[in-house]
Amino acid sequence: MNGTDAPGPDRLARVFLTRVVEPGDEVGGRWVRERGPLEVVRRLREDEPLPGVTPRRWEGLRARAAAAEPVRDLEVAGAAGVRFVCPGDAEWPGTLDDLGDARPLGLWVRGRPSLRMWALRSVAVVGARACTEYGAHMAATLAAGLAERGWVVVSGGAYGVDGAAHRGALGAGGATVAVLACGVDRPYPRGHTELINRIAGQGLVVGELPPGDHPTQSRFVLRNRVIAALTRGTVVVEAAYRSGSLVTARAAQRLGRHTMGVPGPATSGLSAGVHEILRGEGAVLVTDAAEVAELVGDMGDLAPDRRGPVLPRDLLEPGARRVLAALPGSRSVTADEVARGAGTSPDDAIARLYELRALGYVERHGDGWKLTRQAMVSVRGGGSPC
Amino acid sequence: MNGTDAPGPDRLARVFLTRVVEPGDEVGGRWVRERGPLEVVRRLREDEPLPGVTPRRWEGLRARAAAAEPVRDLEVAGAAGVRFVCPGDAEWPGTLDDLGDARPLGLWVRGRPSLRMWALRSVAVVGARACTEYGAHMAATLAAGLAERGWVVVSGGAYGVDGAAHRGALGAGGATVAVLACGVDRPYPRGHTELINRIAGQGLVVGELPPGDHPTQSRFVLRNRVIAALTRGTVVVEAAYRSGSLVTARAAQRLGRHTMGVPGPATSGLSAGVHEILRGEGAVLVTDAAEVAELVGDMGDLAPDRRGPVLPRDLLEPGARRVLAALPGSRSVTADEVARGAGTSPDDAIARLYELRALGYVERHGDGWKLTRQAMVSVRGGGSPC
Repeated sequence: MNGTDAPGPDRLARVFLTRVVEPGDEVGGRWVRERGPLEVVRRLREDEPLPGVTPRRWEGLRARAAAAEPVRDLEVAGAAGVRFVCPGDAEWPGTLDDLGDARPLGLWVRGRPSLRMWALRSVAVVGARACTEYGAHMAATLAAGLAERGWVVVSGGAYGVDGAAHRGALGAGGATVAVLACGVDRPYPRGHTELINRIAGQGLVVGELPPGDHPTQSRFVLRNRVIAALTRGTVVVEAAYRSGSLVTARAAQRLGRHTMGVPGPATSGLSAGVHEILRGEGAVLVTDAAEVAELVGDMGDLAPDRRGPVLPRDLLEPGARRVLAALPGSRSVTADEVARGAGTSPDDAIARLYELRALGYVERHGDGWKLTRQAMVSVRGGGSPC
Repeated sequence: MNGTDAPGPDRLARVFLTRVVEPGDEVGGRWVRERGPLEVVRRLREDEPLPGVTPRRWEGLRARAAAAEPVRDLEVAGAAGVRFVCPGDAEWPGTLDDLGDARPLGLWVRGRPSLRMWALRSVAVVGARACTEYGAHMAATLAAGLAERGWVVVSGGAYGVDGAAHRGALGAGGATVAVLACGVDRPYPRGHTELINRIAGQGLVVGELPPGDHPTQSRFVLRNRVIAALTRGTVVVEAAYRSGSLVTARAAQRLGRHTMGVPGPATSGLSAGVHEILRGEGAVLVTDAAEVAELVGDMGDLAPDRRGPVLPRDLLEPGARRVLAALPGSRSVTADEVARGAGTSPDDAIARLYELRALGYVERHGDGWKLTRQAMVSVRGGGSPC
């Protein structure tokens, strides 16, 4: 299930292709969809050009392919605590399939929690790098409030709004995911190395680029489609006209995700892009976490907590089962108590609790965690709700 | 056509009833609609109770009726330069009829311009009395920008946003209307006496209450329906939850007028009411006058400037005809030049120019006024546009 096991040939081919095909390249995506990753690798190796690219571009891809070392990439990644998650894996977030041929070939993932489970209850909070004090305050407050309501806060790890959102979620003891435009073993920006490492320790750091790869302008832009697709909705906190965060917001809108904006003074250039989006169709003005949660929590098809657990207890991973067993019948307990009861670390307990939250087994109230009513019913042996 | 001529019996009955029936009283409005104002006055005088009120309430109305002196009210008003405009008058703004039985019995009007003509191209700019610097800045800037685009700015004459909007319009040499919740000869608030007198000098001060009458809390609230109905749209600049400006905005929405809000910091209690409206259906976020004008200018049925003059030149009042004649063929001139050419005061020239603007004869560009293309065609003897 993850890259540290002996990889199958399809998985190895996808790892190979993350060195060759740029994120979001729909031509490459179509090749993989129509012919399978193995056949695409074979054609690259044996120089049998595939349709839709110029000879010059084909040569560029061939040069990259010649340098690709997928087995070594997986080794390097594994040593750095990074796994490769791709379509077909239990951890693959199905929501990314909405990207069609721009779907990532796979994602490199640092951190304990299940990306798929966390994505189920996630919201993106994004915005300007050069944000104002107001923008940083709103990002941190929104993220903390979302985390307190059991939502996973996804952002891009950048300076400004992104960093404030991640820190807000971490500060509330909550769950957060950074989606990078470079190798996840190579935190960018450099000034956020410590923050990104903390996110990897308490949450998840993910990206399409293989280990050691660097960010480029187009990779930043295309990274945004992953943030939009992964989450149930995107909140733009501050953004000037033509800002990258607006790319995320528009991608979210195209993907049918909730698109939200935090208003600011009409006189602020850093709110102008947000206001532009709010003047269009379909975007919703939000001023606090409750408003965001109300909106994204409304997607009935993805809201397991309203309908009871979505996975039978027997199918839970052993670690998650142990954490679940450590929760008392009805009382609320802290993550530390759960960790002691389950014989694991607080970080691992928090990761598991958020997974169980996404699955509808537990709910969070402030710093306390407790079984949901539905979970208690299923614990007592199934049957109809009391 | 106005209250200084010998009044007909219906008009006198309406003047009488403005002393008896409170603004927005739909029971009284229904009486007048079903029986005519004269019959309602007769029933009050002869103590023949009308349906829909308790005996106690009927006695209250009778006591007011006993004290009413409509002829004297018209004399006092006339001496203060105030006329009475009511349904059936050429100056009556037909848009007020949308209020149904809550339609004013009539309006007391101070100022030269035609209320009906000005209402055709008017926008309400309203908001909190205790506004922030930001709110005052936005109100003044919006109003100035609207005035520069030939729009009439309507507000309530109050402290805060209202005052800033009136001043913004006046400062841009533009047209503005104050709708008061008291007699128009009795400026309220007292601290705005000078401002309201200036508005009466350059624009219009209107209200439902007869001369000398005072404002009450419910009169303030009910005044707002007149602002909403008179204008093509309402912009709320700053408003706390449960603010009176939200009454205006909701009334505008019910009446099918454009409802707009200026965003502010999500942390500002004085923007909370605006954000609440913007989160609802149908309200549009606006950040400058161009956005407001784009929206309200879109009501094709009321936009004479797009279709040429709406009244034949021969039907214009003599004063308006003289001002029109003072405009050169194609060159743009200032209001002062027009005033000299028409042999009138600059204030009168501005009032006439705005009427002609509403009728599609002239357009304003910055400080200059010129004939519209359609007006030039009709000046040259009608026929099809060149």
